[in-house]
Amino acid sequence: MLNQDHLARIVVVLVRARNPNNIGAVARAMHDFGLIDLRIVNEFAMPLEGARSAVDASSVLDAATSYPSVAAAVADCTLIAGTTAVGERDLEHQLFALSDAAPRLRAELAQPAADGVPTRVGLLFGSEKTGLSNEELSHCNWLLTIPMNQRADGRHLSMNLGQAVAVCLYELVRDKPLAQSPKQSLEAPAADLERITALLAEVLEATEYTRHHPANSTLADIRRLVLRMRIGRTDAPVWMGILRQILWKLRN
Amino acid sequence: MLNQDHLARIVVVLVRARNPNNIGAVARAMHDFGLIDLRIVNEFAMPLEGARSAVDASSVLDAATSYPSVAAAVADCTLIAGTTAVGERDLEHQLFALSDAAPRLRAELAQPAADGVPTRVGLLFGSEKTGLSNEELSHCNWLLTIPMNQRADGRHLSMNLGQAVAVCLYELVRDKPLAQSPKQSLEAPAADLERITALLAEVLEATEYTRHHPANSTLADIRRLVLRMRIGRTDAPVWMGILRQILWKLRN
Repeated sequence: MLNQDHLARIVVVLVRARNPNNIGAVARAMHDFGLIDLRIVNEFAMPLEGARSAVDASSVLDAATSYPSVAAAVADCTLIAGTTAVGERDLEHQLFALSDAAPRLRAELAQPAADGVPTRVGLLFGSEKTGLSNEELSHCNWLLTIPMNQRADGRHLSMNLGQAVAVCLYELVRDKPLAQSPKQSLEAPAADLERITALLAEVLEATEYTRHHPANSTLADIRRLVLRMRIGRTDAPVWMGILRQILWKLRN
Repeated sequence: MLNQDHLARIVVVLVRARNPNNIGAVARAMHDFGLIDLRIVNEFAMPLEGARSAVDASSVLDAATSYPSVAAAVADCTLIAGTTAVGERDLEHQLFALSDAAPRLRAELAQPAADGVPTRVGLLFGSEKTGLSNEELSHCNWLLTIPMNQRADGRHLSMNLGQAVAVCLYELVRDKPLAQSPKQSLEAPAADLERITALLAEVLEATEYTRHHPANSTLADIRRLVLRMRIGRTDAPVWMGILRQILWKLRN
């Protein structure tokens, strides 16, 4: 069962949410389920300002912070799950139904801190109209979806943002004992993985790989490749060292 | 698993809902989860009229009907569950957490029709401000509640109406299979991983990494590092290409 410490390490990240009412509704759902860490990724400060009046969620909104990029918003997260409506796009990530995703998220929260760095779970929600872009999805370790009804015309449904967050938090916080966490190496924080992504991008550029394989070489492609490695905390500095050494050698 | 026939026999009853936006949000959640039968108990026709413009839920709203009383709205239901925030009042009814209530509701829907009368489940939601009155609760066979965080001051929390309906329907409909099976990333065969290990060892040698970090540089160290990556089948050739390109560049 999740305690206050676990709940404090669940981060809800709203990417390009435009509607202050929706941000307010998300804050209220977080408040209802005991979460406190709301982060907004947006070019404008406006949506967060506009939502500050939301009913009964003022403590969550007062503490909410704005970030200029997804990378910055999830830098201290050790596991990042993106939310998506199935069928929205060709998926490059592993996809779990919410009920299968929740035990994985709880297991991550139950892992002890390593080297004083606690585990932290990020849940990414995209804009009301378009969901998460491929670049935004590339920051995610995997995706989750809320199983819904099929439309008669085959098009996908999308949920109202506040309702989607409420359903996800309900499933995550539901009164169930924690899944036994499999003995696994702790994953590196997202900030380390982003550094590895940047170093690898430099290496690919310097070796002309990008010129020969442009289809694999966008920053989002490289980030997805790195995230799929699921690099552990102790391995992250090793990979950074290897990549820096390659760059040093290429330049000398 | 609930089919279309089951879903058609779940009735959502909104009692004294005042806010057209909330009614619209409820209709949208119903639409998302495949429900069609929305009933409004109100002295005024206004709220339903005001909600007709709700996004993507027009079919539910078009078919919604108004009733003058709870008794009239639930007359054809064979099981009626009221929703409540725990602690709201002295409970005279049996109370179940949503996760325990849902199987009971599904079991009722699965019962065969008796004398040509199909089973039908009614879910009652009260007004945003006051919930269901004791008189309204008296129409219910039992109550369900969504477990939420405790307020520090001991007062109960109440959920936004649209969010509460979404969470209830999610739990009720939850055992549906995913519309699309997740893409499993199969791990690469060991032979590929060994080739990657060998290529990485060459790179570490060529960049003098092995000389600077001898402790990380035995072939066994490198193999373990590679195995911990759990490289997928489709990623293995990408990594081989990257490592070969680095070697090519270092030698040219």
